[in-house]
Amino acid sequence: MDINNKVNIGIIGLGVMGKNHIRVCNELQNYELLGVSDVRQEAIDEVQAQYPVKAFLDYKELLEMPGLDAVIIATSDQFHRDPCELAAEKKLSLFLEKPIATSIVDGQAIIEATKKHDVKLMVGHTLRYDPRYVAVKQAADEGKFGEYVHFYARRNATTWSGKRVQGRAEVVVFQGVHDIDFLQWITGDKIVRVSAEAVTRSMTDLGVADTIVSTLRFSSGAIGLLEQSWGLPYGLPWMLDAALEVIGTKGAMYIDTRAPAMSTFFDNKYTQPEVILGLPGSHYLKDEYAWFYDYLMGKKDASATGEDALSALVVARAIVSSMEKHTAVEI
Amino acid sequence: MDINNKVNIGIIGLGVMGKNHIRVCNELQNYELLGVSDVRQEAIDEVQAQYPVKAFLDYKELLEMPGLDAVIIATSDQFHRDPCELAAEKKLSLFLEKPIATSIVDGQAIIEATKKHDVKLMVGHTLRYDPRYVAVKQAADEGKFGEYVHFYARRNATTWSGKRVQGRAEVVVFQGVHDIDFLQWITGDKIVRVSAEAVTRSMTDLGVADTIVSTLRFSSGAIGLLEQSWGLPYGLPWMLDAALEVIGTKGAMYIDTRAPAMSTFFDNKYTQPEVILGLPGSHYLKDEYAWFYDYLMGKKDASATGEDALSALVVARAIVSSMEKHTAVEI
Amino acid sequence: MDINNKVNIGIIGLGVMGKNHIRVCNELQNYELLGVSDVRQEAIDEVQAQYPVKAFLDYKELLEMPGLDAVIIATSDQFHRDPCELAAEKKLSLFLEKPIATSIVDGQAIIEATKKHDVKLMVGHTLRYDPRYVAVKQAADEGKFGEYVHFYARRNATTWSGKRVQGRAEVVVFQGVHDIDFLQWITGDKIVRVSAEAVTRSMTDLGVADTIVSTLRFSSGAIGLLEQSWGLPYGLPWMLDAALEVIGTKGAMYIDTRAPAMSTFFDNKYTQPEVILGLPGSHYLKDEYAWFYDYLMGKKDASATGEDALSALVVARAIVSSMEKHTAVEI
Amino acid sequence: MDINNKVNIGIIGLGVMGKNHIRVCNELQNYELLGVSDVRQEAIDEVQAQYPVKAFLDYKELLEMPGLDAVIIATSDQFHRDPCELAAEKKLSLFLEKPIATSIVDGQAIIEATKKHDVKLMVGHTLRYDPRYVAVKQAADEGKFGEYVHFYARRNATTWSGKRVQGRAEVVVFQGVHDIDFLQWITGDKIVRVSAEAVTRSMTDLGVADTIVSTLRFSSGAIGLLEQSWGLPYGLPWMLDAALEVIGTKGAMYIDTRAPAMSTFFDNKYTQPEVILGLPGSHYLKDEYAWFYDYLMGKKDASATGEDALSALVVARAIVSSMEKHTAVEI
Repeated sequence: MDINNKVNIGIIGLGVMGKNHIRVCNELQNYELLGVSDVRQEAIDEVQAQYPVKAFLDYKELLEMPGLDAVIIATSDQFHRDPCELAAEKKLSLFLEKPIATSIVDGQAIIEATKKHDVKLMVGHTLRYDPRYVAVKQAADEGKFGEYVHFYARRNATTWSGKRVQGRAEVVVFQGVHDIDFLQWITGDKIVRVSAEAVTRSMTDLGVADTIVSTLRFSSGAIGLLEQSWGLPYGLPWMLDAALEVIGTKGAMYIDTRAPAMSTFFDNKYTQPEVILGLPGSHYLKDEYAWFYDYLMGKKDASATGEDALSALVVARAIVSSMEKHTAVEI
Repeated sequence: MDINNKVNIGIIGLGVMGKNHIRVCNELQNYELLGVSDVRQEAIDEVQAQYPVKAFLDYKELLEMPGLDAVIIATSDQFHRDPCELAAEKKLSLFLEKPIATSIVDGQAIIEATKKHDVKLMVGHTLRYDPRYVAVKQAADEGKFGEYVHFYARRNATTWSGKRVQGRAEVVVFQGVHDIDFLQWITGDKIVRVSAEAVTRSMTDLGVADTIVSTLRFSSGAIGLLEQSWGLPYGLPWMLDAALEVIGTKGAMYIDTRAPAMSTFFDNKYTQPEVILGLPGSHYLKDEYAWFYDYLMGKKDASATGEDALSALVVARAIVSSMEKHTAVEI
Repeated sequence: MDINNKVNIGIIGLGVMGKNHIRVCNELQNYELLGVSDVRQEAIDEVQAQYPVKAFLDYKELLEMPGLDAVIIATSDQFHRDPCELAAEKKLSLFLEKPIATSIVDGQAIIEATKKHDVKLMVGHTLRYDPRYVAVKQAADEGKFGEYVHFYARRNATTWSGKRVQGRAEVVVFQGVHDIDFLQWITGDKIVRVSAEAVTRSMTDLGVADTIVSTLRFSSGAIGLLEQSWGLPYGLPWMLDAALEVIGTKGAMYIDTRAPAMSTFFDNKYTQPEVILGLPGSHYLKDEYAWFYDYLMGKKDASATGEDALSALVVARAIVSSMEKHTAVEI
Repeated sequence: MDINNKVNIGIIGLGVMGKNHIRVCNELQNYELLGVSDVRQEAIDEVQAQYPVKAFLDYKELLEMPGLDAVIIATSDQFHRDPCELAAEKKLSLFLEKPIATSIVDGQAIIEATKKHDVKLMVGHTLRYDPRYVAVKQAADEGKFGEYVHFYARRNATTWSGKRVQGRAEVVVFQGVHDIDFLQWITGDKIVRVSAEAVTRSMTDLGVADTIVSTLRFSSGAIGLLEQSWGLPYGLPWMLDAALEVIGTKGAMYIDTRAPAMSTFFDNKYTQPEVILGLPGSHYLKDEYAWFYDYLMGKKDASATGEDALSALVVARAIVSSMEKHTAVEI
């Protein structure tokens, strides 16, 4: 960290999230973006056309930059392990995009590397920074739900999303870990059994399912439903249909991102913009950075930890296993 | 039937639905209510205070009434079989409340009795008369969904409902058959595998679950989620939270009874009345009677048939079996 | 009326509402449709292709039909007076579409004709049969609002509607009388002052406004806002955006027809069907017929009366006057 | 400004907004809160119990603090002028809560003082920082609406709000300036005629209206409706019911803060939290501070300017005049 307590940061991977990270780093005063890397020259060109930042095709060169404090890993999900291990070796703090990895082995290796080299690790489970979901967590911490009865968590995208990911992961790994982590976070409980079904309609060539649905059982006895899809017909008025229902013996909370808090009709097209994540000036990533900064400064614990993220991945992988075996899977 | 083509009808069972039936019979011109029966004298007294109708403690006496054409069976779910069998023997047409029965054996016996005595049978799956659900059926029949991808059906009530039923049936049998029948009806397909979880919090003394959740698999490969609860905390602004999501490769439909199409605030209490089923002058039962009348007149087939209703019960019972055995159940 | 107490009825005017009336007459058992008339041969041809009914180009011939009990007047708004006067002379009962007329003079003449010949008159203010609006009326009659504070009534359609009416009336006369009548009906009060503004954008060639907005003052001191438009851009997911807000000192009610109680996405087009008026099997017109029948049978008073309808027209005309003079108008 | 480019700031007035300002100042790194003042000792005590900040009963002493760069004026609306004039004399930059004043004379005097002493002035019209309203402004700037047809802006609070303000201002001045400023901001146009009605039910003792409704006419010919109330019955599930409708010839936008994007049920009470302004971690005030900072640094113009705020007040005062005279008022 420099004299002004600025964190010198690098970004590996310039996909959708990587570009978001560049934008946010540039808006924040306590981060200094030293460099970025991506294996695709065109991604580098696109970024450099907008921001005057050092860029490398090989992330190893980025990790050699003097003064670097921390690195954001935003590579494709299946390529998290190598840069994490090398960065840990270089004693860099790690901000890692979710899911922690696509295989449990990789997830464990990442955690071990950070422990071995005693470096900090925080995983980008962004629901922990969405004010609506944070409000549910607060109510949970205050005991307002009583005993948990059941949960329902939906996160459905159109085929546009599924095709963009190109079969690199099942939808329950790619986006389901958001809801799995969230439910384990608010309850302080673990999912101990899952039972899943999957259907493939539009993703046939990609070798992954369109939709994966699952029942969930927590160790407390509470139960849940998880609906994860990227098989919605393209053209719906929302990019993402996310919903949450938390039912307790004493209280209940509902989130519905499709509620028409805002709607637009332009060029003969109706849309319902997502008011927290989808509007200009959205702050959820900045709030995540603020947390990471406090974590680096020793003022807060990581949120989410590598263990949290690994636990969500374990559940997601169990769901994939269940959908393949047509039977319940104990965790 | 009398000279004016009026159907002379009797009603067995004067619970919530039985009283609804009396009210509707009295409003319709092509039905003549000859008599009612209930094992509880106070139920008879309550009805007779409002309507001048013959009433019997023993339904067998009701079934002896001369001129009777048809009988509505609205007894408690587990007591459907005996009156159905006797009515069939008496050559009466049967309008039977859902679920067809609580056990598959009873359901089969009812169907057999109607076949043996060649009498008509129609089961009261009311979603088939809810204009919103009818609109989904129309779109399905027109092929607008393309291939089905996945379904989500929610039907959640507060603990008030669960306690009223007093443990006579699991929630997935009592109210889940609505959604199961509906999904099989619109798809013309069968559910072939289920996997369920259940939780008991408030219904402990009643020996039934608060909430039962399940994955569904159809023979076409389409999948679904079923959420059935009577464990919501009492006092919520809606009596019933029902939702439906139908996702196909070519189109999608959503029903949400909690959308605030109408809301009221009186006596410091906010409510969101259900606009189709909950407002004065609701017509869904009248539409069901009109269908039954046309069925009796030979103008339409039954909707739903005994076989439809039995199939829904078979799925519901498989869900109960799955939740008890913690494993997927093939049907 | 015939021996079965069937009302023999005729329909004058085969536009949108006229065709609705034919359909409903054919579904009801206590009405017998004797004949119809329209000045346009193609409208007659279209109807006769679907229904085997006698039809006349000249409504005077229809009114000569023997056995006719009542006639539905569904001509263009400005042509209500002549057929009403002749039908009254013929001693026929009158069911008249809203607005009663487009000029106050015509409205008064219609009422006078029915009084002079002592015939029955009921005007088709359909909000009185919309279950949501009926629920507001019930709450009003039960005194649940306390003193009225303020009202907001919106009824907005797209330019498609405005162009269809072809400048025959201002939007506040054509559709605004629905809300004006409704507010006067539930309050039992009269609007005594209005102040309006109008804007013309798309209806320039038709000589009418796109949108007319107005403040309302009731004799009780309560106030309101009226928003009436047929200037919404075409293509929105709803045919009509109607909303109502009733605020009282003790309670409040809200209706919002845009709340997504139901939504569809087919052929790349998102819609939110109106669940009461827009779905197949809608009953509001049948309920209106049932009321008219009871009125003819002497069991109920007319709803709405000619005086009610005239009062709504007087307010609508005052709004037009205010928007032209840019000043408040006392009634 | 100090060496780190921190703005040294003082806050005058420790009501609801003043306390919000203290909280936000403490969270931001580029502001340093030097001191606060309020005429009520208990307000000072309450603040000092939470924050270790210098406090004065007399704002004049606060304005003498060495190093002070800027001052936030958050006194009661009618007491804005004196501290503004003195602060301007002291060459301090001014961040002034809306409305600029309750009388036009005061508003003009404030602007003159800032001009005479050449100090900066920005007025806290917070809708300019609400992401939903900002999205409407963006669409407006991009010409997406075509020609404006009509607007509807609602801002309704319960009697709790009205009673808290204790008759210091009419509701259209207190909260209506938000919507008036917003509509003039997005259109770049001025309201040139208003016509209003008011009703007093619960605020009788306070000498102000419960609800004020008004038609609006813009110089472009576009029209609008303004509904401003603090007369809603207390206990509704929302603190504030705000809605916006912008209809243009080419497009439309809707905001509805009552859409159930989130709902909670605890302690037998249902609420619908406002997701932008009402959840923990809300950023709209921080965004306003960021803008003010950039304005002080010469990177941006003020938003809103004193002239903007005065123009909104002029319209609000015209509405009050219209409601008193029962006639349209030209501006």
